[in-house]
Amino acid sequence: MTPAELDSLVAQIGEEILARIGGGLPARKGEGLNLPDQSCPGCQQRCPQTCVRNTKEIVAAGADRVSASERLTKIDPAIAALIDHTILKPEATRTDVLKVCREARQYGFASVCVNPYWVPMVRAELAGSPVKVCTVIGFPLGATSTEAKVAEAEICLRAGATELDMVINIGALRSGGHEAVKLDIQAVVKAAHQAGAIVKVILETALLDDHQKAVACSLAKLAGADFVKTSTGFGPAGASAHDVALMRAVVGPEMGVKASGGIRTLEDLKAMTAAGATRIGASASVKIVEATGAGAPSAHLHA
Amino acid sequence: MTPAELDSLVAQIGEEILARIGGGLPARKGEGLNLPDQSCPGCQQRCPQTCVRNTKEIVAAGADRVSASERLTKIDPAIAALIDHTILKPEATRTDVLKVCREARQYGFASVCVNPYWVPMVRAELAGSPVKVCTVIGFPLGATSTEAKVAEAEICLRAGATELDMVINIGALRSGGHEAVKLDIQAVVKAAHQAGAIVKVILETALLDDHQKAVACSLAKLAGADFVKTSTGFGPAGASAHDVALMRAVVGPEMGVKASGGIRTLEDLKAMTAAGATRIGASASVKIVEATGAGAPSAHLHA
Repeated sequence: MTPAELDSLVAQIGEEILARIGGGLPARKGEGLNLPDQSCPGCQQRCPQTCVRNTKEIVAAGADRVSASERLTKIDPAIAALIDHTILKPEATRTDVLKVCREARQYGFASVCVNPYWVPMVRAELAGSPVKVCTVIGFPLGATSTEAKVAEAEICLRAGATELDMVINIGALRSGGHEAVKLDIQAVVKAAHQAGAIVKVILETALLDDHQKAVACSLAKLAGADFVKTSTGFGPAGASAHDVALMRAVVGPEMGVKASGGIRTLEDLKAMTAAGATRIGASASVKIVEATGAGAPSAHLHA
Repeated sequence: MTPAELDSLVAQIGEEILARIGGGLPARKGEGLNLPDQSCPGCQQRCPQTCVRNTKEIVAAGADRVSASERLTKIDPAIAALIDHTILKPEATRTDVLKVCREARQYGFASVCVNPYWVPMVRAELAGSPVKVCTVIGFPLGATSTEAKVAEAEICLRAGATELDMVINIGALRSGGHEAVKLDIQAVVKAAHQAGAIVKVILETALLDDHQKAVACSLAKLAGADFVKTSTGFGPAGASAHDVALMRAVVGPEMGVKASGGIRTLEDLKAMTAAGATRIGASASVKIVEATGAGAPSAHLHA
């Protein structure tokens, strides 16, 4: 595809999306909380409702889980499994990051998401658990060179990361450099896929208009990325249901959509999954997932 | 030096600095605006006062300067020469960055400071001028690996950067990892010095207490860096005169101290140079330097 053809394609996609948004983006029907496609660990069958896992097995897995067993009997593991448990503030200490790892094992979060410096330690802490090691590339400005993003990605992959959340080149996108943005994503995706890892492409939606968001999603899809993601958490605003719905509409059902930035409650999370998000980035993950127990009606519980 | 010896040394330095701060850090006497050690371009001799350069030579150097000649006759080149004219916001477009380059040539700023993606373009735009190409490494979180910082630095140096503003590993510092912080700086300094470039070490003072700031300065000095710098501009606060004075007290007179973050007026700049800053990072550089003309008493002018 030539740069001119790419420009034409993204322009068409942008127009189509804007037309759809003009008519209102419907919430996807019948998907509820968009549960992962897996058997319910409580009832051992496909479970269309949110449900609570009997935590005996979990508790047996490690002494550190016993202390949390009271709370764990009440939480919804399908919600926990949607969350990248995240600590990206630069002032985070070793102790802070270790706490996040412990919580991720206890609650069964999808991943622990940390800055690259912490990847080797997090990998060691999560060894033997199903929790993934997620890190960030070109973060949070996205304004380094493609070569530097690839080098950083390769270093993180060697250190044990299996999920890379990379920031697009926002300035290049806003300057009309579609080809540069696509190649930037493509280079990181190539390095990740060769190592068996996945890539989530962060748009930083607060710095883009709707047309630019649609174009960025198209470029991420063309570049072979696995997810698009709303925000870094360091921009002027975080995820919105509008943006998640727009992104889902552009990328279609095959790709993941991760909502992140400002998601602090179970209600925030539900608004995002209802709009089409299949992964959630949060720091308040423990509070969010414990709310699934506190507020869950008994009809949702399986013995 | 063993890690234990290093820990002991930085602890001593920290204590000494804290004792000095307890007694109040005096402003350095007789240094006024801390002019660079060079002859006044107006009077061709060492000039203890701020002075204004006759801009005929400057205007003759390029057509693009003629349009600004009215304003340029009034500005203080010694102030302009202190400023890294900075554009680091991720949404900056090609047009925005080109404007900053044009302004830097017109006003004679020390450098243009941009994100790595823009370095090749900025190098081309500034070719033939004395304005340096400055970029940022591990920016703004400082939480990537040393290996990634070195890779990013080498890519930027090859692309034409001659000044690298790197962020320390804040989390490692706050976790007591002095050796890791020193080695991180040292590795970037080595790459830069081999290429004839200089390194400014960003502490992100708003995330550190005074003892940590003093330790970070000591580590930057031990690692052979050229400058310490207060802030990224993306943290919870920017430069303060207190922090600049503390940093100057630790690093001594040989190293540079760059104040950055929130410096928007000539008064802000003067407060920083009075406290010991020898370089200023600013985005409002044109406004700052034009204020040197507007408010300059005629006694400061040389014919």
